[in-house]
Amino acid sequence: MKITALIMAGGRGERFWPKSRKRTPKQFLSLTHSDETMIQSTVRRILPLVRMEDIFVVTNQDYERLVREQLPSLPPENILCEPTARNTAPCIGWGAVTIRKKYGDAMMLTLPSDHLIQQPKLFRNVLKNAIQVAQDTDALVTLGISPSSPDTEYGYIQYDMESSEGYHNAFKVKRFVEKPDLATAKKYLADGEYLWNSGMFVWKASAILREMEAHLPDHYALLTAIEQAIGTPEERGVLEAKFIQMRAISIDYGILEHSKNVYVLPASFGWDDVGSWLSVARINPADEKGNVVRGDVISVNSTRCIVQGGGKTIALVGMEDTILVDTEDALLVCAKDSAGEIRKVLEELRSNNRSELL
Amino acid sequence: MKITALIMAGGRGERFWPKSRKRTPKQFLSLTHSDETMIQSTVRRILPLVRMEDIFVVTNQDYERLVREQLPSLPPENILCEPTARNTAPCIGWGAVTIRKKYGDAMMLTLPSDHLIQQPKLFRNVLKNAIQVAQDTDALVTLGISPSSPDTEYGYIQYDMESSEGYHNAFKVKRFVEKPDLATAKKYLADGEYLWNSGMFVWKASAILREMEAHLPDHYALLTAIEQAIGTPEERGVLEAKFIQMRAISIDYGILEHSKNVYVLPASFGWDDVGSWLSVARINPADEKGNVVRGDVISVNSTRCIVQGGGKTIALVGMEDTILVDTEDALLVCAKDSAGEIRKVLEELRSNNRSELL
Repeated sequence: MKITALIMAGGRGERFWPKSRKRTPKQFLSLTHSDETMIQSTVRRILPLVRMEDIFVVTNQDYERLVREQLPSLPPENILCEPTARNTAPCIGWGAVTIRKKYGDAMMLTLPSDHLIQQPKLFRNVLKNAIQVAQDTDALVTLGISPSSPDTEYGYIQYDMESSEGYHNAFKVKRFVEKPDLATAKKYLADGEYLWNSGMFVWKASAILREMEAHLPDHYALLTAIEQAIGTPEERGVLEAKFIQMRAISIDYGILEHSKNVYVLPASFGWDDVGSWLSVARINPADEKGNVVRGDVISVNSTRCIVQGGGKTIALVGMEDTILVDTEDALLVCAKDSAGEIRKVLEELRSNNRSELL
Repeated sequence: MKITALIMAGGRGERFWPKSRKRTPKQFLSLTHSDETMIQSTVRRILPLVRMEDIFVVTNQDYERLVREQLPSLPPENILCEPTARNTAPCIGWGAVTIRKKYGDAMMLTLPSDHLIQQPKLFRNVLKNAIQVAQDTDALVTLGISPSSPDTEYGYIQYDMESSEGYHNAFKVKRFVEKPDLATAKKYLADGEYLWNSGMFVWKASAILREMEAHLPDHYALLTAIEQAIGTPEERGVLEAKFIQMRAISIDYGILEHSKNVYVLPASFGWDDVGSWLSVARINPADEKGNVVRGDVISVNSTRCIVQGGGKTIALVGMEDTILVDTEDALLVCAKDSAGEIRKVLEELRSNNRSELL
């Protein structure tokens, strides 16, 4: 069966302000020492499994130019620009009907554009197993990450350790759980039956659409209308009219939590969702004082800082656990334990109509 | 008697890096909300007492252009460029012989160029008293600041509270003491007989030169040689040959500590020596969270920070007691209690031959 990929690249990446901006969010940047942007790495690492012309990128009109620039060999018609943001279920549904219209049916790797994977070969091996399971079972297959800490920023997947041992490493999913509190996360970690929900999925287009028809029938009806218009002069008009009618809902909450036919492949391939500036310290090498710096930085008695420099020389003196991000027009200095409050800066910029800095 | 002023403007201001640079030290900058630089304020506040043509500025060749630019109505011949830095005694001695050569004798206000005085009218009243005392007694008169805290960054002056009460508020000095430790400074403050040594002096040129002859005879001999050459074709050559032979020594240590004829005027006129970034928090108004900011700053849950912005927007999130200084080519982020270690950044720049940043 043909293998396609749907890469989701519509996110705004506010947690990486000021480097990530509305006009250039995280997936179009490099946050490691690599020169490649995150979406470029996402594509490159699946190319041994998927042909470029079978890769689809869902984004929005603001980023179409960036996708074309960063992925010049992607056919322009494979860039799907959402008329509006409606979370992952409508996004994936649109991708699935686009693929069904074009190929009848196909395997569909459904991947975020802004995650880091440090062992791409291991990752592809897991994908191959997932494809085999999805092929054989018609199931929805998710990639679950063996948790290394009781992280409260991830959703968790509880799986049935007895269910299918040995079968391409796939296990039946018992349930999906939302981001837990710390005590619960610690229990999950000790329990051993829980994995981090990576947001990466493998399924046939027909399989996800069948589940969508069952669990989100209103969405499915709108999606079939969109599908019928593909290739006609009314395509964009129908898309805009129907897409906006779909309720915003995530694929996890809308489908995966309800479906009876979900497998998970527990895996470790150096995954990081690069969810905040704190992750930059996890995914990049640190100096002997625990500082992770990029740019021209002079550090005096400073420890565990994260520095993303711009053009100028940065001197850190006596600083601890501080995030410093310098860009051409904005500078962030943030205590590590306040990283969640960066959004308040964006709120202030919005309320002062300073959209040039968003 | 004619009143002249000698303004000392040769300092390098390393403690204000990166705003203060070797090519533009602190006295040529504004560190308050004023548009005036510190040397401009220094001159303006004495102009009601001294004519511009009777003001002399001792600096060095690197800063001659800055002095001309910032004090355009100062006669260029009143800018005295030291061939080399030799601390304050040679600097003041050269000023004194220059004034003696030109005027025979004159009153000589001897002032740093980089101090802040928030009540200039009170300051001038103190100067007038000091001039009267120096006129009547031929003494060396110093301005002593009533201490508001047990500061260990200042030298102290112990004075004889019984000595001359009522006489233009001047008192005989018992002794000068170097920067004390905290316990000693606390004793001084409790004692009430101690003042901060402001480094501002009033005396006749003849008086300081007589004391120099007594306590620094080698310096005095070299200074008279310099004086004789003033106005001759050999002037610069003699200056360069003799000045370099003078041992570096401060006026306090070389003369004031030994002289028997020293008065002090205790005073309070909103004085600050602006000795480090920490002083910026003392001399500028703070917001309700204790932050002293200059520039376009968005502050979220941040307290007691000092921010000197450059052109860009600065967001502070969850920061405390941090100094942030942004300039075109260098950025400093420094814990307040590490302000003394800024010099280590300069050492590193020097050892890496990065003189463009010094």
